[in-house]
Amino acid sequence: MPSISNKGRQMPASPIRKLVPFAEAAKKRGVHVIHLNIGQPDIKTPKVALDAVRNHNIEVLEYSMTQGSEAYRKKIADYYAKQDIRVSSDEIIVTTGGSEALSFAMGTIMDNDDEIIIPEPFYANYNGFATAAGVKVKPIVSSIDDNFALPPISKFEELITPRTKAILICNPGNPTGYLYSKAEIEQLAELVKKHNLFLIADEVYREFAYDGREHYSILQLEGLEENAIVVDSVSKRYSMCGARIGCLISKNTEVIQTAMKFAQARLSPPTFAQIASEAALETPQEYFDNVITEYVARRDTLISELKKIDGVKVAVPQGAFYCVVELPIADADDFAQWLLENYELDGSTVMVAPAAGFYASPGLGKNQIRIAYVLEKEQLVKAVQILRSALNKYKD
Amino acid sequence: MPSISNKGRQMPASPIRKLVPFAEAAKKRGVHVIHLNIGQPDIKTPKVALDAVRNHNIEVLEYSMTQGSEAYRKKIADYYAKQDIRVSSDEIIVTTGGSEALSFAMGTIMDNDDEIIIPEPFYANYNGFATAAGVKVKPIVSSIDDNFALPPISKFEELITPRTKAILICNPGNPTGYLYSKAEIEQLAELVKKHNLFLIADEVYREFAYDGREHYSILQLEGLEENAIVVDSVSKRYSMCGARIGCLISKNTEVIQTAMKFAQARLSPPTFAQIASEAALETPQEYFDNVITEYVARRDTLISELKKIDGVKVAVPQGAFYCVVELPIADADDFAQWLLENYELDGSTVMVAPAAGFYASPGLGKNQIRIAYVLEKEQLVKAVQILRSALNKYKD
Repeated sequence: MPSISNKGRQMPASPIRKLVPFAEAAKKRGVHVIHLNIGQPDIKTPKVALDAVRNHNIEVLEYSMTQGSEAYRKKIADYYAKQDIRVSSDEIIVTTGGSEALSFAMGTIMDNDDEIIIPEPFYANYNGFATAAGVKVKPIVSSIDDNFALPPISKFEELITPRTKAILICNPGNPTGYLYSKAEIEQLAELVKKHNLFLIADEVYREFAYDGREHYSILQLEGLEENAIVVDSVSKRYSMCGARIGCLISKNTEVIQTAMKFAQARLSPPTFAQIASEAALETPQEYFDNVITEYVARRDTLISELKKIDGVKVAVPQGAFYCVVELPIADADDFAQWLLENYELDGSTVMVAPAAGFYASPGLGKNQIRIAYVLEKEQLVKAVQILRSALNKYKD
Repeated sequence: MPSISNKGRQMPASPIRKLVPFAEAAKKRGVHVIHLNIGQPDIKTPKVALDAVRNHNIEVLEYSMTQGSEAYRKKIADYYAKQDIRVSSDEIIVTTGGSEALSFAMGTIMDNDDEIIIPEPFYANYNGFATAAGVKVKPIVSSIDDNFALPPISKFEELITPRTKAILICNPGNPTGYLYSKAEIEQLAELVKKHNLFLIADEVYREFAYDGREHYSILQLEGLEENAIVVDSVSKRYSMCGARIGCLISKNTEVIQTAMKFAQARLSPPTFAQIASEAALETPQEYFDNVITEYVARRDTLISELKKIDGVKVAVPQGAFYCVVELPIADADDFAQWLLENYELDGSTVMVAPAAGFYASPGLGKNQIRIAYVLEKEQLVKAVQILRSALNKYKD
């Protein structure tokens, strides 16, 4: 019998994968499961995007251009111009989700056994893309006590070796909700220029910045043109996770030319989804204003409810729609499974994402969970009630 | 300035990439360029598939299941059952094009520096997926003189080392048009079982088998369950190249479980395209009968016209819609560029794909081109006329 590769076996499973059968079993028992575990917004997709697909007049569903249709890329460039980011359509490759942009970025700039530094906790799939590309993740821990702010630059410098090729940040962060300040971005820029590294910024949550804070993109920094690679996506911005459209942006022509070879191998991004994504750029500002208002209200509700629980520590998110919560327990994996297997309050329980899966350092985040506040406020209140009473029972 | 990886630089560019600017320049000069170089069918996409997308009633465009929607996978299994292939929906992962299925297959079963044996000429992007996965391609040359039939098994055995993990075939072949016989598939099956290798079959052209021949799938062979991995796609079958939907199929549970980790990292395949692909399975048989009749007529026209040219050798395709043609010239790259730069007949010229890009062995295929017969017969006749007169002039 043939055997699969060692790399395949090392591909990390999703942090919640082990829990899925327990959630299914709970549902079969008639228990209502409130999903705090996944970043699938309940927000409606803009009508203009859905209608554009309804009104398509395609007769032959052909490959699009490998880098995405020219019309769409020009409109993306216009969108960035409004955000004070100057890029041309030639500096953009449309990808199949932000996921593919991350894969292309890692494949383009890194060889097998090269190293990438990522502040942890971080989006768990970074581990998957790194493993697939043969790249080693070097984590730097950030702390819930300062809302997961950027670790000191000296900590990065300690990790830099001749094999280090890049630093990767998610801004605002999944799972942290932390929004890096302009000063933090400038510190990182100095660092990558000093050591000739790339700085990859996953900015898919760019529009989700709260409390009057403004997102500051690495593409806004002068002098960082050769180092900066941005990953973006329509998934969260327009509640279009199922479209699978993102993009890779860089002003470094060697990066774009090389990433294009990866793009050519997979021929083109999906056509219907590009139609929807191009139309989505016409979404009125009111849509975003309403969405932001809604998320801020959800966040405020969630945080204030969580703070009522004894022994719970919460990082206050300034962006995105996640927060990391420290619980007065030893093992969130066990607790999350117990919630699904053994607990219900008035016929309901909650599913959370244990945070250990967002750390690369073994043993970290064991007492933390990630909550995605993509549900209505009433549901969030109910979910926290369940968490509180469950904690009381679990600790007994 | 940061530097990109050696792997990135080694990613092969598309075989026709160098020609694209010359084609664009020719069009700017007002020359009509007949494209024989790309497998983008002109056949209309089934109405049932396009209508399903027009009639979507999505309000929130959510992620689909990572492995593709259950309804769609069940229908795929039903489709295979009609082809005498017994698979369950759990043995199928829906992918973003056949391209992603190939990437998943290589990543799942192979480590960096592992080896995969592929008869050449082969689909050029296999090189790209192998490079991205850090895998080495070991080619075995097949010959235009027997229509690119399977090379002797002894030639495969000569190449097998401890690092060999798989053999990859494309059946029917792009660029060869060769349809492997049941006997050839059985020989390969014996070989992979003897050496504990995987056999990956790219069967995306399965429906395009001509002259009363039947396609024989590696999934039809008893005893090959643990070794067989099939890559499939809706792109050519339904003229839906822009959908970007394919699938990976294996009865080896370790392969499926590991490939699922790669699939989870990229979250899900595109939703609109899955809607179109599921509906496409309702395409009436008449559609395929008409398409096959059309392609056979095109092939016959193309081959009979090509045979009128002195010094031209043609492999007669039994499937797919490509053929490899040997020309009485030394360097098809140069000829292809010359056609675009310096030649026109009554205001038209042709763009062909030089075949060297379909060989991994340096120096092979230099006097060959690949023609995709995805154009109407009148266009093909005109294209061959241009080729013939161009060859006369070029040789002067």
